[in-house]
Amino acid sequence: MFNSIGNILKLTTFGESHGTVIGGIIDGFPAGLVINFNEIQNELNRRKPGQSKIVTQRKEPDEVEFLSGIFEGKTTGMPIAFQIKNTNQKSKDYSHNTNVYRPSHADFTYDKKFEIRDYRGGGRSSARETANWVVAGALAKQLISQIKINAFTSSVGQISINKTYQELDFSKIETNIVRCPDEIIANKMIEKIKEIKKQGDTIGGTITCVVKNMPIGLGEPIFNKLHAELGKAMLSINAVKGFEFGSGFEGAKLKGSEHNDIFDENGKTKTNFSGGIQGGISNGMDLYFKVAFKPVATIMQTQKTINSEGEITEMKGKGRHDPCVVPRAVPIVEALTAFVLADFWLLNKIRKIE
Amino acid sequence: MFNSIGNILKLTTFGESHGTVIGGIIDGFPAGLVINFNEIQNELNRRKPGQSKIVTQRKEPDEVEFLSGIFEGKTTGMPIAFQIKNTNQKSKDYSHNTNVYRPSHADFTYDKKFEIRDYRGGGRSSARETANWVVAGALAKQLISQIKINAFTSSVGQISINKTYQELDFSKIETNIVRCPDEIIANKMIEKIKEIKKQGDTIGGTITCVVKNMPIGLGEPIFNKLHAELGKAMLSINAVKGFEFGSGFEGAKLKGSEHNDIFDENGKTKTNFSGGIQGGISNGMDLYFKVAFKPVATIMQTQKTINSEGEITEMKGKGRHDPCVVPRAVPIVEALTAFVLADFWLLNKIRKIE
Amino acid sequence: MFNSIGNILKLTTFGESHGTVIGGIIDGFPAGLVINFNEIQNELNRRKPGQSKIVTQRKEPDEVEFLSGIFEGKTTGMPIAFQIKNTNQKSKDYSHNTNVYRPSHADFTYDKKFEIRDYRGGGRSSARETANWVVAGALAKQLISQIKINAFTSSVGQISINKTYQELDFSKIETNIVRCPDEIIANKMIEKIKEIKKQGDTIGGTITCVVKNMPIGLGEPIFNKLHAELGKAMLSINAVKGFEFGSGFEGAKLKGSEHNDIFDENGKTKTNFSGGIQGGISNGMDLYFKVAFKPVATIMQTQKTINSEGEITEMKGKGRHDPCVVPRAVPIVEALTAFVLADFWLLNKIRKIE
Amino acid sequence: MFNSIGNILKLTTFGESHGTVIGGIIDGFPAGLVINFNEIQNELNRRKPGQSKIVTQRKEPDEVEFLSGIFEGKTTGMPIAFQIKNTNQKSKDYSHNTNVYRPSHADFTYDKKFEIRDYRGGGRSSARETANWVVAGALAKQLISQIKINAFTSSVGQISINKTYQELDFSKIETNIVRCPDEIIANKMIEKIKEIKKQGDTIGGTITCVVKNMPIGLGEPIFNKLHAELGKAMLSINAVKGFEFGSGFEGAKLKGSEHNDIFDENGKTKTNFSGGIQGGISNGMDLYFKVAFKPVATIMQTQKTINSEGEITEMKGKGRHDPCVVPRAVPIVEALTAFVLADFWLLNKIRKIE
Repeated sequence: MFNSIGNILKLTTFGESHGTVIGGIIDGFPAGLVINFNEIQNELNRRKPGQSKIVTQRKEPDEVEFLSGIFEGKTTGMPIAFQIKNTNQKSKDYSHNTNVYRPSHADFTYDKKFEIRDYRGGGRSSARETANWVVAGALAKQLISQIKINAFTSSVGQISINKTYQELDFSKIETNIVRCPDEIIANKMIEKIKEIKKQGDTIGGTITCVVKNMPIGLGEPIFNKLHAELGKAMLSINAVKGFEFGSGFEGAKLKGSEHNDIFDENGKTKTNFSGGIQGGISNGMDLYFKVAFKPVATIMQTQKTINSEGEITEMKGKGRHDPCVVPRAVPIVEALTAFVLADFWLLNKIRKIE
Repeated sequence: MFNSIGNILKLTTFGESHGTVIGGIIDGFPAGLVINFNEIQNELNRRKPGQSKIVTQRKEPDEVEFLSGIFEGKTTGMPIAFQIKNTNQKSKDYSHNTNVYRPSHADFTYDKKFEIRDYRGGGRSSARETANWVVAGALAKQLISQIKINAFTSSVGQISINKTYQELDFSKIETNIVRCPDEIIANKMIEKIKEIKKQGDTIGGTITCVVKNMPIGLGEPIFNKLHAELGKAMLSINAVKGFEFGSGFEGAKLKGSEHNDIFDENGKTKTNFSGGIQGGISNGMDLYFKVAFKPVATIMQTQKTINSEGEITEMKGKGRHDPCVVPRAVPIVEALTAFVLADFWLLNKIRKIE
Repeated sequence: MFNSIGNILKLTTFGESHGTVIGGIIDGFPAGLVINFNEIQNELNRRKPGQSKIVTQRKEPDEVEFLSGIFEGKTTGMPIAFQIKNTNQKSKDYSHNTNVYRPSHADFTYDKKFEIRDYRGGGRSSARETANWVVAGALAKQLISQIKINAFTSSVGQISINKTYQELDFSKIETNIVRCPDEIIANKMIEKIKEIKKQGDTIGGTITCVVKNMPIGLGEPIFNKLHAELGKAMLSINAVKGFEFGSGFEGAKLKGSEHNDIFDENGKTKTNFSGGIQGGISNGMDLYFKVAFKPVATIMQTQKTINSEGEITEMKGKGRHDPCVVPRAVPIVEALTAFVLADFWLLNKIRKIE
Repeated sequence: MFNSIGNILKLTTFGESHGTVIGGIIDGFPAGLVINFNEIQNELNRRKPGQSKIVTQRKEPDEVEFLSGIFEGKTTGMPIAFQIKNTNQKSKDYSHNTNVYRPSHADFTYDKKFEIRDYRGGGRSSARETANWVVAGALAKQLISQIKINAFTSSVGQISINKTYQELDFSKIETNIVRCPDEIIANKMIEKIKEIKKQGDTIGGTITCVVKNMPIGLGEPIFNKLHAELGKAMLSINAVKGFEFGSGFEGAKLKGSEHNDIFDENGKTKTNFSGGIQGGISNGMDLYFKVAFKPVATIMQTQKTINSEGEITEMKGKGRHDPCVVPRAVPIVEALTAFVLADFWLLNKIRKIE
């Protein structure tokens, strides 16, 4: 509950954006997996601040340190604890905001709920937490290495890829700083974000995630449907406002005779409006879904707001924030996807008599 | 896990569409609430098959029987078990399909995962299960009776309400059989569904849910965010393909300066792109979200498909199915919303020292 | 929580002693097991009231009815719901006690905690609930049929078996009504219980449980140690006051040089003070433990007590109660043992990379 | 699951005896409690190695460092993470045992279960882990500061207090190094342990725990009975072989007419064979229970054993181990008791309508 995700493979996290350290414990990870530590760090680097001109210029090395559960390079079946140091807290950036509620942030709700204000950059509500998820997801990816997960930026503001995912070359995702596999669109997105940044403003966007090589049978009736758990995981990411899989909201406009996925003789389907999931269980087709991110709430413009006394005041963001979170959220989407799939992959081993 | 939902208030369900009975156990319900049984039955009646010309013509009385946890009209704090008899199974309707995988149903995935086929109308994967949820939700509504939950049909196929929810009169929702508060649009929807039904086809739609009188503070960081749990609950409903709250997918197109909800001096916000939730916690503004339903997979037209031997065959739906699930799904959306909110309402009582 | 037991194999129960029905839902049971229903009923018959002269003379057929999760004789992987009718409630037996707190019963604590009194025979706190556990345990036994579980009455009051379990012939357990494999001691126990019954009194006793054919590896560090979960399960049984495994309380008197179990070259141990568990994990040796039951609180003698107004009053038990619960608790101990072991047996399948 | 304890207040731990650090995350701790850090360190000091002549002479400062969830001295409602450095691992002490299974240790079972051997002092199975529990328990004590928990050494080997707990002066517990409130018996115990230590042997013992000022109503039917959760917690402690509460195993010898606790007009009971718990719920009387500890398995004598190849070999303990764990286990028993009670205290706030 509260700070844990997963059913049998469970991640519990801790840490505030401006404490000394964040981290987590992964419980239920099977013994005997040889860990590739470079791959974990690579994932963290994909999320890291300061990686390009279109993301926040904060500098954080974001090096993960494993504290338990791995011995001589192999998982032991014991809980895997890890931590990442916060080297660049700069609480001073936030000192002017100690009792001001930033618009569309969690300041107001945390203060009202817990009656204590950790004013240092949002404390626990900060997206700093997502670095923990990337570590857990990177381990999960290694556990289910046969499954291939690719997320990418599918829109920034009004600029959107207008191809199906089948028309895209995923090897291009990491070739540009916005993580969009369509190069022409990618350039437009980058220009847009630069322009927005100059305005001291921010902008929203969407990420699409495609999972190939899916085994049949992941997902559990009735309340652990694969897409329900993926949706919950995605909606846990800061700034996410929506989730759809397969035909999604467009599917609601269609007729059954258009939408039904007809089988071929190999048990594959000719179309895939189902998004790889039927009845909450993977059917072996590509799994795909889309996630909507609102624009970052911290803007470098003066806004009216109130403080904890209810007085009207003005504020202007001073920290170093992302003009658009989407490029850095791509590895976060992948990480949580991997974690959810690994959890279901383990569960699926014990759902029938062998 | 598997067949339970909720954290401290927990519903565990059972039952197949064509067994003798379905039901559930609600655990963690506080002692001392006087139950209004009529209100529970009313909610079931709103979901009941056969209630109008645009829904399935199956007849099920759907009367709930409480087996425990209520004594002399009051909850006792003990688990509340209940059951609903399946009076109208008509397994014969399905006997011709015993080894055929219906397109876009769960037949294929359940069979591959569990290696056993309950061919009677989908067995556990049937939306019959949702009657259980309506019972649990009706109890939850009574627990948090100060909170007002209104769901309604916001689109059927391409026909969509084009007003904001603030412009609608929720008292009109139950005045028409499609449960759309805009009467003109409602009539168009009804006509559309009748036309689709004549074609032996089905059609998708969306439901919008608005919650008023929300207390501040519901939702739990980091992995039990209010919208993440609501999203998971909604994505658990049969046929759902997407969930968005507040500005949703449209919000991903906006700039921060447009999207931020500015506070007034009472701690209310002037706009509500946040949808009543900031940082995963309710802020006291109206909570609203939208759910996308695909068209029902069972159509009364001949479709090609395969059987469990992988042979190509033809099938045509013979059961009595809904041409559009959305009207009957309105009370289901409300029920799960109530259940999730009641769970968080209980949790919130123990999150700070009094 | 509250009314559930098990980690991945989970039983959730409901029902009061004097409601119409009790029952439960078993979630997480794997698909594909052919169920022997007679064996389940046999276990219930071993627990049933009225089975002999030394137990309560209440008559309950205690026939279990399965409502879901089993199709054509096989488990489907879906939740297995079941119920047992209460045919012999005789609430009238209790009507004189509606506001009297019976000494050493749960009447006082339930009333103070929940502020509602279900005065009909203890309501939820009644040992009637254990019939549910026997059903779940009987299913679990079939899942782990290679593991052999034998519980027996090891003492009644001061009368105690003074042989080690290795000296006993478990096939004799069911040959006498007190379920003690030592026939001479069994007769003494039976005489003792008859005498106690004549006095309108009750008496305590102990049950020993021995599990043979244990696989190595059941139990999970750190907080799901095999003996800790067994202990919790046993302490959940009505009237239980203590649990010890292996050397138990006697082991606390020994020296390490006496107590250590030395390995032989086959990985077996020459002694088994460990009781088949080391570090919370089964080591393949016989698992054995002992459970202490206090005397039943309801006696057929006049006792002073108080009512809910705090007034001193007198009461005399009028229901039909057991003079000694131990003979009927033997199948309950076995059932919970089987359930706990089956849960760990499933978990153990996913704790290392294959 | 696995490495977590608690229902709504949850501790998840990590760490091996010879890693760099151990620690944990406490989730669900309410916001707003001012923390007394000295009291936490005091509890750790009571458990610390090297504290007296009758315990292991290892030196560990055992200083706890809090990483999150506390801001300006107050809990924030966020997860409280903490760590304790392992400064004195001395893996060399264990290097000779890398593939030898120490008798009555967890070496064999961990190796067979996980197929990986962390040979450094038992790895995760070491009692080093219990330092984490003391931290969590010390925080829990502050949450329920009105409840008074006193554990003490009630026997070492055959030497046992033969007074009831009511006859003891708990203020004497910390006046001697064995933590026995009866000074004469304490001295005998200390002499016994010194003698055992000289022999290179170890010895078992028991701890009694008494909780005063108990609120009425802690504990949850049916599967979270107060004594069942306490029993599980105690059985989780390394070397524990048995648990009994109230009359315990002696109660199994009594008659109902002797054992029933008769109420007085204040709702107190004249005797307390129930041990403060009826029907799994506290009744406001003193809660008391006893825990049996086997002798430590590591002895400084030569023992025959096997290695992972199944070859017979000899070994002799070389690490610095406790001749008797009981004195250092006293604060561990208290810590877990506090944690379990705090969890139930929180749960109890939401079990009835106010």
